[in-house]
Amino acid sequence: MFGGELNGPADFLVERLASAETPDASGLAFAEKKKYVLEAKKSGVGALLIGPDLEADGIPSIRVSNPRLAFFKLLTQSDHPYPASVGIHATAVIDPSAQVDPAASVGAYTVIERYAVVEAGATIHPFAYVGDHCRVRSGASLLPHAVLLRNVDLGERSVVFCGAIIGGDGFGFVWDGSKHVKIPQVGKVVIGPDCEVGSLSAVDRATAGVTTVGAGSKIDNLVQVAHNVHLGEHVVMAALSGIAGSSQLGDRSTVGGLSTISDHVSICADTILGGRAGVIADIDEPGVYFDFPSQPVSQARRNMIHRMNLTDLVQRIRNLEQKLAQLEEKES
Amino acid sequence: MFGGELNGPADFLVERLASAETPDASGLAFAEKKKYVLEAKKSGVGALLIGPDLEADGIPSIRVSNPRLAFFKLLTQSDHPYPASVGIHATAVIDPSAQVDPAASVGAYTVIERYAVVEAGATIHPFAYVGDHCRVRSGASLLPHAVLLRNVDLGERSVVFCGAIIGGDGFGFVWDGSKHVKIPQVGKVVIGPDCEVGSLSAVDRATAGVTTVGAGSKIDNLVQVAHNVHLGEHVVMAALSGIAGSSQLGDRSTVGGLSTISDHVSICADTILGGRAGVIADIDEPGVYFDFPSQPVSQARRNMIHRMNLTDLVQRIRNLEQKLAQLEEKES
Amino acid sequence: MFGGELNGPADFLVERLASAETPDASGLAFAEKKKYVLEAKKSGVGALLIGPDLEADGIPSIRVSNPRLAFFKLLTQSDHPYPASVGIHATAVIDPSAQVDPAASVGAYTVIERYAVVEAGATIHPFAYVGDHCRVRSGASLLPHAVLLRNVDLGERSVVFCGAIIGGDGFGFVWDGSKHVKIPQVGKVVIGPDCEVGSLSAVDRATAGVTTVGAGSKIDNLVQVAHNVHLGEHVVMAALSGIAGSSQLGDRSTVGGLSTISDHVSICADTILGGRAGVIADIDEPGVYFDFPSQPVSQARRNMIHRMNLTDLVQRIRNLEQKLAQLEEKES
Repeated sequence: MFGGELNGPADFLVERLASAETPDASGLAFAEKKKYVLEAKKSGVGALLIGPDLEADGIPSIRVSNPRLAFFKLLTQSDHPYPASVGIHATAVIDPSAQVDPAASVGAYTVIERYAVVEAGATIHPFAYVGDHCRVRSGASLLPHAVLLRNVDLGERSVVFCGAIIGGDGFGFVWDGSKHVKIPQVGKVVIGPDCEVGSLSAVDRATAGVTTVGAGSKIDNLVQVAHNVHLGEHVVMAALSGIAGSSQLGDRSTVGGLSTISDHVSICADTILGGRAGVIADIDEPGVYFDFPSQPVSQARRNMIHRMNLTDLVQRIRNLEQKLAQLEEKES
Repeated sequence: MFGGELNGPADFLVERLASAETPDASGLAFAEKKKYVLEAKKSGVGALLIGPDLEADGIPSIRVSNPRLAFFKLLTQSDHPYPASVGIHATAVIDPSAQVDPAASVGAYTVIERYAVVEAGATIHPFAYVGDHCRVRSGASLLPHAVLLRNVDLGERSVVFCGAIIGGDGFGFVWDGSKHVKIPQVGKVVIGPDCEVGSLSAVDRATAGVTTVGAGSKIDNLVQVAHNVHLGEHVVMAALSGIAGSSQLGDRSTVGGLSTISDHVSICADTILGGRAGVIADIDEPGVYFDFPSQPVSQARRNMIHRMNLTDLVQRIRNLEQKLAQLEEKES
Repeated sequence: MFGGELNGPADFLVERLASAETPDASGLAFAEKKKYVLEAKKSGVGALLIGPDLEADGIPSIRVSNPRLAFFKLLTQSDHPYPASVGIHATAVIDPSAQVDPAASVGAYTVIERYAVVEAGATIHPFAYVGDHCRVRSGASLLPHAVLLRNVDLGERSVVFCGAIIGGDGFGFVWDGSKHVKIPQVGKVVIGPDCEVGSLSAVDRATAGVTTVGAGSKIDNLVQVAHNVHLGEHVVMAALSGIAGSSQLGDRSTVGGLSTISDHVSICADTILGGRAGVIADIDEPGVYFDFPSQPVSQARRNMIHRMNLTDLVQRIRNLEQKLAQLEEKES
C-alpha cells in the first residue's frame, strides 16, 4: 500500500492505529525519531511505520519514506462521519418561517427558529439549536448540543462542536450610578467557510455590526471570542484562550492555550502567541510573543529565566551592598 | 428624532446600526472621539452620529450632543426578545409535583423536575432544564440549554444564557488514605433579581448553606463560581475568571478576564481586579488591583515594567560587580 | 446520634445544615476552630457541632469529638440522588444497533447512537447523548446535557456532570502552506471507575490510541483534557485548568485552578501544582510546585515575593550605582 519494506513476521495482524506510547500489542504507530522507537519499545505497541534511517529495535515494522504522512493516510482511511439523520427527523421542531432544505440532515430533538435557513448538505445533530435569523450553509454541521443563538451565519463546511455557543449576547453594560444597564446587542456573527469551533467555546455577536471568524480558522475547546472581535483567516486559538471586545487578530496568527488579548487591541498577521501570553497593546511586527505582559520571545525567555532566579539576584545585590559598605568604611 | 443636525445627502438611507470599524456602506455608527472618525473613514461605514466638536471628514453625519447615548437609544429600538413559546409547549416534560404557572412560557424540549416552580412571566427556552427544587421567578429566563440542576432560586428578571450550569455539585472531597471520598453537596444557590449569567458559566451549589449572586450582578461567559461563594450586588465577572470555594466579593466589585480569587478569601466592596489578576489574600481597601499575586495598580504597574526589563537589571548588576572588583583590586 | 453533649435549649429545632458564615437561625454548622465560632457568632447561624476544646460563646451547640466528621455524616444523611427515570423513557431515541440494558435508567429526551452500550444500573439523564461506540458502565451516570461523543468508555460508578463533553475531536492540524488540514481523530477515551468529570469540562479523544483518566480521578468544572493525555489514578484537576496534548500526570497528583501543563510533558506521581501554575517541562520529583514557569514551592515563593518588590530592588541598584560613582570619582 505504501510501497514500504516489511520487517517482521508476514502474518502479524495490526488491528488499530495507535500512538507509540500506547501499550497495545495489536496497534500500529509511527516513528520518525529514535525517541518514538524507544517509547514503542517501552510501551510494547505492536508495530511501527518507521523512517528510512531508523532501527526498529526488534519491533515489527514497515519502512517508509515519510512515516508521519503514511500514518496520516491511514488515519484518513480509518475515519468516518458522525452518524446523522437521513432527511429531517420527525421530532425536529421547525418554525414555519424557517427554510430547511429537504437535502439537509436535521437530527432528533433539534429546534430551528424563525427566519433560520439550513441549506442543502448541512447537518444538524441532535439537541442543536438554530436560532432566530441564523443560516447554516452547505456542508456545515452543528454537532450535538451546538447552539447558534441569533444572527449567526455559519460558513460552508464549517463545524461547530458540542456545546459551543455562537451568537450569544455581547457582554456590555453601562453603570448609571446605581446599577449596570444592559447595552442591547443587535449585531451578528459571521463565521467563514472551513472553520472549526471547538466544544464549549463561545463567540458572542456584535453590539452592532459583526463579529467575524475568517475562513479556515480553527478554535479549540473552552475559548472565548467576545463581541465585535475580528479574527482573520486561518487563525488558530488553543484551549482556554480568550480575545476581548473589539480586538483584531491578523491572518494565520496562532494563540496558545490560556493566552488572552485585551479589548480594543490589534494584532498583525503571522503572529504567534505562546501559551499563557497576555497581550495588552497592539502588535505590529509578525513574530513569536510570550509571557504577560507579552514580549518578543527572545526578550521574554531571558526575562523569564531571570524571574526564576530573582533570589540569586537579590543575593548579588546584597553582596554588592556589603562590599561597597566595606570600601566606603576604608575610604573614610 | 434626536434633534440633531444633518450633514450629507437627505435621502441617504441607513439600513443597520454598525460600529465605526465595520465596512458597511449602509451602516450607521457613532463617533465621540476623532479616533472613531478615522476608523469610519478607513472602513467606509455609511454614516455617523457625531459629537458637537468633531469634523465628520466628508462622511454623512448627524450631529448630536451625546452620540453614544443617541446610539444606545437606537440599539434599544432595534432590539427584540428571543422567540418564546406562548404557554406551555406540548413537548415539555413536567413532573407532576412541579408548579408551572399557566402564564409562564415553557418551550419545546424542556424538562421540569420534581418540586420545581416556574412563576408567571418566566420564560424557559428549548432544551433548558429546571431541576429538583428549583424556582424560576417572575420575568426570569433560561436561554436554550441553560441548566438549573438542584436547589436553585433564580431571581426576578434574571437571565441564564445558553449552556450555563447553575446548581451543580460543589467540588469537595476528603482523602481517606487510598481514595478521594466525595463530600455530599446538599446546599443551594440563590441568584438575586436582575442578574445575568453568561453562556457556559458554572455556579455550584453550596456544600451546606448557600452560594449567592447578589442583585444586579453580571457574569460573562466561561466563568467559574464555586460552592459557598458570596458575590455581592452589582458585581461584574469577565470571561474565563473564577472564584474558589467560600470566598466573598463585595458589592460593585469587578473581576477582569482570566482573573482568579483563591478559596476562603474576602474582597471588600468597590474593588476592581484587572485582567489576569490573581488574588490570594484578603483585600480590605477598595481600589484597583493587578497582576499575580495581585497588588494595588500603581505598585503592580511599576513592578510589571521592571519585570519586562530584568535583563537590563541583571546587566546593571554585572557592571556594578565588575567596577567594584576593579576598585577592590586598586585598594589592595 | 453522635453521643455528643448538648448545650442550649433542648427544644431548639435545626431545620437545615449550614456553613458557619450563613445567617440562618435554623441552620446547624460545624466549628473545629475558634475562627468558625467567631464566624457563627457574626452570622447568627442557629447551632453548632463543636469540638472538645472550644467554647460555643452562647450559641446552642452539640459537643462532639470530631465536628467535621459528624457534619460529614449529617450531609450524607441529607443527600439524595438526582431524579431519574424508572426504565427507559418513551421519548428516548435509541439506534437499533445500540444495546441498552432494561435495568438501566434512560431519561426523557436522550439520544443513544449506533453501537453504543448502556449497562444495567447506569443512569442517563435528560438531554444526555451517548454517541457512536460509547459504553456507559454499570452504576455510571450522565447528568443532564452530558455528551459522550464517540469511542468513550465510561467506568463503573463514574459521573459526568452537566454539559461536559467527552470524546470530542482532538485539536490537530497540519499547515500545508495555504491552509490548516485536519488530522483525523480516530482514537478513544477511557475513563476509569469512580471518576467525576465536572460541568462544562472537555476530554478529547485520542488522535490514535487512547486518552485516559485513571480510576478515582476527579475533574472540576471548565477543565480541558486534550487528546492522548494520560491522567493517573486519583488525580484532581481544579476549575479552569488544562493539560495539553500527549502529556502525562502521575497518580494522586493535584492541579490547582487555572494551572496548565504544556503538551508532551510528563509529571510524576504525587505532584501538587498550586493555582495558576504553568508547567512547561517534565517534573520528576514529587512535591509542590507553583507559578509560571513552575518551580518548587520554596523557590517559587521567594521569587514571587522579590517579584512583588522589584521597584525596591531597582532602587537599591540605583543607590549602589550612585555610591560607586562617588567612590570612583574620589579614586580618580
